[in-house]
Amino acid sequence: MHPSSKLPVAILGATGAVGQRFVQLLANHPWFEIAVLTGSDRSIGKPYGEVTRWILGEPIPEKVAGMIVQPTTDVADVPIAFGALPTESAVEAEPQWAANGVYVCSNASAFRMDPLVPLLIPEVNPEHLGMLERQQRERGWRGAIVTNPNCSTITIVMALKPLHDAFGIRRMFTTTLQAVSGAGYPGVASLDIIDNIIPNIGNGSEEAKIETEPLKLLGRFEDGAFRDARIAISAQVTRVPVIDGHTAAVSVELDAKATPGEASTTLSEFRAPAIVRGMPSAPERPIVVRPEADRPQPRRDRDLYGGMGTTVGRVRPCNLFDLKFVALSHNTIRGAAGGAVLNAELLVAEGLVGNR
Amino acid sequence: MHPSSKLPVAILGATGAVGQRFVQLLANHPWFEIAVLTGSDRSIGKPYGEVTRWILGEPIPEKVAGMIVQPTTDVADVPIAFGALPTESAVEAEPQWAANGVYVCSNASAFRMDPLVPLLIPEVNPEHLGMLERQQRERGWRGAIVTNPNCSTITIVMALKPLHDAFGIRRMFTTTLQAVSGAGYPGVASLDIIDNIIPNIGNGSEEAKIETEPLKLLGRFEDGAFRDARIAISAQVTRVPVIDGHTAAVSVELDAKATPGEASTTLSEFRAPAIVRGMPSAPERPIVVRPEADRPQPRRDRDLYGGMGTTVGRVRPCNLFDLKFVALSHNTIRGAAGGAVLNAELLVAEGLVGNR
Amino acid sequence: MHPSSKLPVAILGATGAVGQRFVQLLANHPWFEIAVLTGSDRSIGKPYGEVTRWILGEPIPEKVAGMIVQPTTDVADVPIAFGALPTESAVEAEPQWAANGVYVCSNASAFRMDPLVPLLIPEVNPEHLGMLERQQRERGWRGAIVTNPNCSTITIVMALKPLHDAFGIRRMFTTTLQAVSGAGYPGVASLDIIDNIIPNIGNGSEEAKIETEPLKLLGRFEDGAFRDARIAISAQVTRVPVIDGHTAAVSVELDAKATPGEASTTLSEFRAPAIVRGMPSAPERPIVVRPEADRPQPRRDRDLYGGMGTTVGRVRPCNLFDLKFVALSHNTIRGAAGGAVLNAELLVAEGLVGNR
Amino acid sequence: MHPSSKLPVAILGATGAVGQRFVQLLANHPWFEIAVLTGSDRSIGKPYGEVTRWILGEPIPEKVAGMIVQPTTDVADVPIAFGALPTESAVEAEPQWAANGVYVCSNASAFRMDPLVPLLIPEVNPEHLGMLERQQRERGWRGAIVTNPNCSTITIVMALKPLHDAFGIRRMFTTTLQAVSGAGYPGVASLDIIDNIIPNIGNGSEEAKIETEPLKLLGRFEDGAFRDARIAISAQVTRVPVIDGHTAAVSVELDAKATPGEASTTLSEFRAPAIVRGMPSAPERPIVVRPEADRPQPRRDRDLYGGMGTTVGRVRPCNLFDLKFVALSHNTIRGAAGGAVLNAELLVAEGLVGNR
Repeated sequence: MHPSSKLPVAILGATGAVGQRFVQLLANHPWFEIAVLTGSDRSIGKPYGEVTRWILGEPIPEKVAGMIVQPTTDVADVPIAFGALPTESAVEAEPQWAANGVYVCSNASAFRMDPLVPLLIPEVNPEHLGMLERQQRERGWRGAIVTNPNCSTITIVMALKPLHDAFGIRRMFTTTLQAVSGAGYPGVASLDIIDNIIPNIGNGSEEAKIETEPLKLLGRFEDGAFRDARIAISAQVTRVPVIDGHTAAVSVELDAKATPGEASTTLSEFRAPAIVRGMPSAPERPIVVRPEADRPQPRRDRDLYGGMGTTVGRVRPCNLFDLKFVALSHNTIRGAAGGAVLNAELLVAEGLVGNR
Repeated sequence: MHPSSKLPVAILGATGAVGQRFVQLLANHPWFEIAVLTGSDRSIGKPYGEVTRWILGEPIPEKVAGMIVQPTTDVADVPIAFGALPTESAVEAEPQWAANGVYVCSNASAFRMDPLVPLLIPEVNPEHLGMLERQQRERGWRGAIVTNPNCSTITIVMALKPLHDAFGIRRMFTTTLQAVSGAGYPGVASLDIIDNIIPNIGNGSEEAKIETEPLKLLGRFEDGAFRDARIAISAQVTRVPVIDGHTAAVSVELDAKATPGEASTTLSEFRAPAIVRGMPSAPERPIVVRPEADRPQPRRDRDLYGGMGTTVGRVRPCNLFDLKFVALSHNTIRGAAGGAVLNAELLVAEGLVGNR
Repeated sequence: MHPSSKLPVAILGATGAVGQRFVQLLANHPWFEIAVLTGSDRSIGKPYGEVTRWILGEPIPEKVAGMIVQPTTDVADVPIAFGALPTESAVEAEPQWAANGVYVCSNASAFRMDPLVPLLIPEVNPEHLGMLERQQRERGWRGAIVTNPNCSTITIVMALKPLHDAFGIRRMFTTTLQAVSGAGYPGVASLDIIDNIIPNIGNGSEEAKIETEPLKLLGRFEDGAFRDARIAISAQVTRVPVIDGHTAAVSVELDAKATPGEASTTLSEFRAPAIVRGMPSAPERPIVVRPEADRPQPRRDRDLYGGMGTTVGRVRPCNLFDLKFVALSHNTIRGAAGGAVLNAELLVAEGLVGNR
Repeated sequence: MHPSSKLPVAILGATGAVGQRFVQLLANHPWFEIAVLTGSDRSIGKPYGEVTRWILGEPIPEKVAGMIVQPTTDVADVPIAFGALPTESAVEAEPQWAANGVYVCSNASAFRMDPLVPLLIPEVNPEHLGMLERQQRERGWRGAIVTNPNCSTITIVMALKPLHDAFGIRRMFTTTLQAVSGAGYPGVASLDIIDNIIPNIGNGSEEAKIETEPLKLLGRFEDGAFRDARIAISAQVTRVPVIDGHTAAVSVELDAKATPGEASTTLSEFRAPAIVRGMPSAPERPIVVRPEADRPQPRRDRDLYGGMGTTVGRVRPCNLFDLKFVALSHNTIRGAAGGAVLNAELLVAEGLVGNR
């Protein structure tokens, strides 16, 4: 299933915060080779290293620094593109690339709830890729679009998945404490967040994403359509002075009762499908349950398995529902660029791309 | 009702973080005069200014700095004492002071759920003071103990009170984001909280307080006993890198339906009983509802009315219950020392102390 | 000397971070009344409260919120204007206002080193106002421009002034730790400064200001010209995750030797000229020397005297020069808006404005 | 020179913050094997994993977690011990271990200025190991003590070394901005450092270390004695809200003039002696000079070469001396545990330990 030689890939919107993470994760990827970087008018025709305000610690990979930034409007001849565009631009550009034969692993919110687009977490709903055939047929595309969920949704759904399979989830309350990197760069002003928290993100839109995306992710792909899971969700989101790592405090009501011990075991023993386990960016184990009373913590747990792991802790009874727990993952790796890379690896592993 | 001359008061455990707040709030109080400061063995017999690692911005009030620290075991001849002792010490000392005729406004958790001790927020349940007669009779005390609630409880209950009166609260979920000052000094290590959050406080005990104290506070004093309100509460607490100001994200289920607009109006129009409104530390209005999408915020809202106000924002519908909102107040002023001072003012205003 | 009724004043560039501080400081000023607020195209013709992203804690003063924002290009008929414009705009607008009879108290760096413009700290060099006559004559202005120094310069010069008068300063090294509010709003991205420091501000320009402005401030006004003090200065600046309050670590070489004790006494005993002491925004004492080993600290000392005081600590011998110490003041009050207000008060106190 | 099988090593004071770093760095070390962990009375006889409040992100290495903590007073039969003891304990324990044949790589300040103890940075002064023969003879030890410098000293000296060799350093001013991890755990209270800086560390003792240790490090080992370099140093230290990474703003006066370009080249081209370059913990290059105007920054540069690299930036002219620059390294890796591990590697590489 692995590509015999590295597949050339494009990064759309490569100069921004998420674009930089793509560059970092793909610079030494065993299956992919960065072939094209696109950017806005300001950067087109110039070396990537010159036009990018690089915000990550380790330097720009040398071979990438010298690459000339291309217009996003010029669809390149690559099998896979990673989308790090703002939503408004993604709506324009990504379908163009898909139409011209490229499999776009989008990170924008634009197509997440599109009834023909798989909203994908490889460990959770790889069978949703079954939609691509219909997507290509109905949209008239030679390529396709798959997307990854919101950076908080992914943390929560990763923890819900095994519980939903085992016990059935009916209702969920969650409050998130989200890192500033989720807002991109420059993003949150330091004057707004030092010695402070902000009790809203995107004026309600972030909460709406967390209240709807899990229904699609935990739903079934059946008769050529996505059937939402029947779960009622209420979310409150906050921004906290943390660089990376979104934390979610979660309470769930279950169909079948489960003790905290049973839930912890279910979470710990959760494994991705075999095809996913062999992919280069897949975490060793999707979920690690920490027994300590004060974990997970963003600074100490976000880097689990290169930022691709999810940590759960404090699984305990809930006065109103059945269980409470806290879940955490790295928002710009697992929750953004890394999630999209994992989606691309699944496309390759499934033989949809790269072996034609 | 006002005392004709200032009443001498004692501060028990005056050198710690809460004790310092008492000193700050009482140094120029119109009704009270700091007469006695008590401390631990290490400080007894020495000037307060020398033994105190003063952590507030403005300097120690000069007249207090020179006062000699007394042993907590020597009950002083004062009508009122403010308790800033650790719970274990409070359990020993406060009953002694009460037995000897002192009205102790305790800030410790020790007596909060004692069936004979009023857990008091003057704007919320001043009638609970009716218990003091029975407390004195049954305990054989000439003085008494009243307590203020946990620093997160007070924020939440202040917002619940008008809603409970108007619409009836059945169930509540809350997640708190609590400031580091809530842990006292030195309290939370900077290595634990910079670029981080901690998803637990007191290994579950903080959550237990938030799940139980509101029932007593919103309950009735009837036939000489406290009758708990019938509300089911589930809480998750977190520590965040904020100096002062606890934030609570709250979802409530109501008996009678209410729109966000009706709830906001109810909160805004809430007023304390007349006797409370004239007290020197009472905030101009107990609750301010902010219309902005991103308020309340701890750094920007904690100092409302000298730290005695409560700010509510983001009143909106909840997918699962009826309403969601965010509430905030200053945890070491409203939620600790200031709350106890307000309780003492109520004792005086009600004529229980100071006009004998 | 005090104005018999409040003088109407304009705030140029009122919607930004410094503009907001002007609004806050002037809303209840005993001598001044906000009459005009100017802003950029985006805001002109709209109520100030609607177009301003208000970032201070306490709400916008009600009477100001409803005022309609005016174009900066329309010079108003007011005796005094406060300049909170970006430097590029200040260069255009402030001379226009001055030409039309307004005394402009500028906060921009544009005119600080102009040989005809007083760079003014009322406690330090009030006699530099003597230049205004020549400024008006040579520039053909009916009004005038006075400026306040860079926000770090003022902290340092306030501490240097008494030492320079008493012992003569020859050389000075300083490293500053500057608050994020110094960069305006949105200013420093949280992604750049949480768990981090940045060892540069304005790519060297901030250091250049600190190396040159003190020479003018500590220089003499003689024969109608400013004569720079002969001091050699080297500065290194850093940005730190602090909301307000610039700290400077300073080492000085003196003409006449002084012990740390003598220097401390000299700093403590420093008093402003009598005319300054009666001004409403003048701090009770210009400099407070703290004896504690760990002061000054920005969060605990910046609000001294309403943010107008300067705190000095750790006066001690230096291995290379004579003395080392640490100085601190509030950068957006003393170092910006409050400094300009004090300059305006001096104009009034000196009878240059307001008694026509 | 490499040991044929792994050498067993002890970690003295293994449960504290520096001890944990030793455990982390040695768990998979190619030359060393953790054989003994010592701790205080509280932990003796219990498994390391149970008694240690582990504060690093990645979990305790499994094989170490189960090891039983030993008393520091029982000298073990190991060739090398790493000292992570508080200074008072180190003074007692380390000579005992040395007397009994162990080479102690101490991290305490106790013996740094001892005229018979090498204060060692392998890239800087490996020849100082020549003192060990005399140390053993005069002290009657079969083993020995070598120490690494203060965590800020090492950053500064690493940058000074190539400049001193090339141009000669006469005088140096430095102001440091130091991370909270330098104070150990719990160390700095969050109430003291959020939205704040503290302008002192160890009440002057940290400054004294920075003013004296470089003289020994940059001095010669001659005729069996250390000859201090003739450099005059003045330091001011501050604590900033940064987790890891000490930054130093430095100004130097040189014997031979050098342009910033020449100095940058000298720094960039600096290489460790050949024997050091082959050691497993030696950074690829000792110093990296960053050209960006805003580097080095602690969060972005501290992890260079696994925390063993030093980053220098902003090399530029100084108004008073010759050059100014900013230097940074990881204080608990390069500046503490990693530095001591490097010293141990030098002992092995030099054949002093492990090949007898």
